[in-house]
Amino acid sequence: MDVQQKQQAASELRALLGDRVTDRADVRQAHGTGYSYHTCMPPDWVAFPQSAEEIAGIVSICSRYQLPVVPFGAGTSLEGHVLALQGGVCLDMSRMNRILEVDFANMCLRVEAGVTRNQLDAFLDGSGFFFPIGPGVNATLGGMASTRASGTNAVRYGTMKDNVLSLTVVLPNGQCIKTGSKARKSSTGYDLTRLFVGSEGTLGVLADLTLKLHPYPEAIYAAVCAFPSVEAAVNTAIKTIQNGVPIAKIELLDALLMRAVNQYAQLAYPEKPTLFLEFHGSPVEIEGQIRSVQAYAREVGGNEFSWEKEPEARLRLWQARTDAAPAVLAMVPGASLMSTDVCVPISRLAQCIVATQHDIEKNGLFAPILGHVGDGNFHLSIPVNPAIPGQFEKAKALNERLVQRALALEGTCSGEHGIGVGKLAYMAAEHQEAVGVMWAIKKALDPTNLMNPGKLLPL
Amino acid sequence: MDVQQKQQAASELRALLGDRVTDRADVRQAHGTGYSYHTCMPPDWVAFPQSAEEIAGIVSICSRYQLPVVPFGAGTSLEGHVLALQGGVCLDMSRMNRILEVDFANMCLRVEAGVTRNQLDAFLDGSGFFFPIGPGVNATLGGMASTRASGTNAVRYGTMKDNVLSLTVVLPNGQCIKTGSKARKSSTGYDLTRLFVGSEGTLGVLADLTLKLHPYPEAIYAAVCAFPSVEAAVNTAIKTIQNGVPIAKIELLDALLMRAVNQYAQLAYPEKPTLFLEFHGSPVEIEGQIRSVQAYAREVGGNEFSWEKEPEARLRLWQARTDAAPAVLAMVPGASLMSTDVCVPISRLAQCIVATQHDIEKNGLFAPILGHVGDGNFHLSIPVNPAIPGQFEKAKALNERLVQRALALEGTCSGEHGIGVGKLAYMAAEHQEAVGVMWAIKKALDPTNLMNPGKLLPL
Repeated sequence: MDVQQKQQAASELRALLGDRVTDRADVRQAHGTGYSYHTCMPPDWVAFPQSAEEIAGIVSICSRYQLPVVPFGAGTSLEGHVLALQGGVCLDMSRMNRILEVDFANMCLRVEAGVTRNQLDAFLDGSGFFFPIGPGVNATLGGMASTRASGTNAVRYGTMKDNVLSLTVVLPNGQCIKTGSKARKSSTGYDLTRLFVGSEGTLGVLADLTLKLHPYPEAIYAAVCAFPSVEAAVNTAIKTIQNGVPIAKIELLDALLMRAVNQYAQLAYPEKPTLFLEFHGSPVEIEGQIRSVQAYAREVGGNEFSWEKEPEARLRLWQARTDAAPAVLAMVPGASLMSTDVCVPISRLAQCIVATQHDIEKNGLFAPILGHVGDGNFHLSIPVNPAIPGQFEKAKALNERLVQRALALEGTCSGEHGIGVGKLAYMAAEHQEAVGVMWAIKKALDPTNLMNPGKLLPL
Repeated sequence: MDVQQKQQAASELRALLGDRVTDRADVRQAHGTGYSYHTCMPPDWVAFPQSAEEIAGIVSICSRYQLPVVPFGAGTSLEGHVLALQGGVCLDMSRMNRILEVDFANMCLRVEAGVTRNQLDAFLDGSGFFFPIGPGVNATLGGMASTRASGTNAVRYGTMKDNVLSLTVVLPNGQCIKTGSKARKSSTGYDLTRLFVGSEGTLGVLADLTLKLHPYPEAIYAAVCAFPSVEAAVNTAIKTIQNGVPIAKIELLDALLMRAVNQYAQLAYPEKPTLFLEFHGSPVEIEGQIRSVQAYAREVGGNEFSWEKEPEARLRLWQARTDAAPAVLAMVPGASLMSTDVCVPISRLAQCIVATQHDIEKNGLFAPILGHVGDGNFHLSIPVNPAIPGQFEKAKALNERLVQRALALEGTCSGEHGIGVGKLAYMAAEHQEAVGVMWAIKKALDPTNLMNPGKLLPL
């Protein structure tokens, strides 16, 4: 694009948005990266739309000038989803943070895409309902839908794909569509809601979402249990799932991570593979669940549970899990975190984790493991100090071997972080000819590749 | 297509399939209709493939000669999905009925698309696992995936969209792809599994499916409860859902249907709106669930539950629900059944059912209502005697008003039967501009519209 065209585009954006579009270097810089190790790639402009109509206006201008459009939620993506690889306009959704409709009778609510998880939690507090999807950060709901996020509750409540009823989407041609409805099920046409969920902004911009709410449990108990080995802990998780115990959270922290957490928060947990558990239901139901899971744990040499039912004590107990990321960082001064995740069929989970631990040890790295083990999903947190030569490359190679290991075990290269640019190299290996179908859909909806170009789909 | 081309196509099909392709009139006739009121439209040939490779071969021949491809499961579709509107080749999947892989450790199993529900149930009997999706007929799993089927257990276990992990699909270009994996969750690219589920054979042919299994419940109790009004019954269902009671089935039979069922099976149930309920879990959990639901029922004047926990007594109790279709038909000698379904947000359900009952009465029709009320989904069964002039048109007009009513209440024109040709007229009203996105996807994957043409997508 020549200078004159660029000025023309800028003046159209300003005419639409006034001072809600900017090319200030600091703002562009702040929008060129997520919580990730990827090099910042700032957009040419950052726009702050306030409505679906404004998004449509911006997208139309971008389409006319062939400018890339990069949606931006809270900037917490881990795989470089918000990098403006080819410049263009970043759509910062932070001003689209209204709760549009509350419908407790139908257990749903409609929010603009820029509403954050913490904002939603605060809004729902005391309502008797909650939204179960929680990544470890204060992401926006739009971002969470775009990456098909999940988190600790997914084992019971599913992921974003299971908890979005309906979407308003601005298409690359500037048209605005609604997918789905408030009806709990439907057999009427292609499932566009689930096509846009997980599409990482490559097919359109999510303007608002209708979310499924769940009744707040009558009671919540939390428990912690240490095991002699990763296998023992994972086998307890498998047995829990196979027996249909509707556990709400079942999180594995490996021995390394328990050490980090103990040091960080001055705790005295056994430095062994440990399950953090949460149970939802009536007290009678929960006690039945705890009895079952405790029995499975005992069979493989797990400790007796320490468990809590009072909210404060429960949160204190879970704090160790919540502190995982800062605890890991505190072990390696000057480092920042390379976070990665894979997901395998649950029967392969222990094998995958143990092989990964050996890999880490053999290569002299420090990389604790944290798993949503009920789903077969786990994270590796690799602190990387850029000042130490070769450390970044070593971390990347470890990540690469982890992905290959997961794929060889019939798994997937990301359970919940998404592809972005960070996992692009593995799409072909995982999906093979199906990548062609994804490209066909992309080209059908976005023929000139303006929507978050360079993400999700490998060249 | 001229005669010579047709002969050429036939000889290529015969070369591939031998006597597993036929143009015998009786076979073609038997494949030109489902369980529906639509006029039979026979295909030119019926093929019986035995593998994904053979499907690919047939599709390639069809693509070369521009012949439509119509997948055929058990022929139990209710909306004319299998009508060969433009002739072509019907793919009868009945010979693709192998269980390909059993993986209880990962709670899944892979089946060819022609495996039927009854076959699957028999296979899983005694395994400790079950597959929860059950339409009222012995459909194939491929057909159930294609129409996004659900049934009585959906309120707890979801629909086909929630219970298919992975698909093998033969694309219109003859290419074979695999979608998804055995991993329970993934954030890697467009959700092709859920795009093909519900696509009614218009994007490709399903060759096999990996299904999610669920642990067979420790105990199953069934209960029946009569109510003074539809509102009272529906409000009990709403309260059950809103309080998070994980009920497995909650089915409404209206007073008319209870009368039909009593007559058909010589039973003596009160001829009032009645809920048939099923509870899964441990006996302690179930008793807690029953206590809760019984309390909600009492608040609105519902009777005391009659309930059963022994398998035989439980099945006897549910027999009344199972007999619904033949019971309705028995009331109107010489009639066949026009079945339709809609789904509305649950808060609108009582309003929608009551308005529909008034409509039926006002128009002098006989049409009992059966609802999967936990999902807001209900069926109207309209016996139509073709010998009575005007009855068919009256039934169609009732169906049309029902759909308009559901859409006006923010619902959907089909909860589980699909679009086929029967509901095509309502796609634009329900999905508006989103139909354009569906067409764009269709054209991208099937540019010459050979895959089940004339279904799902309105012109």
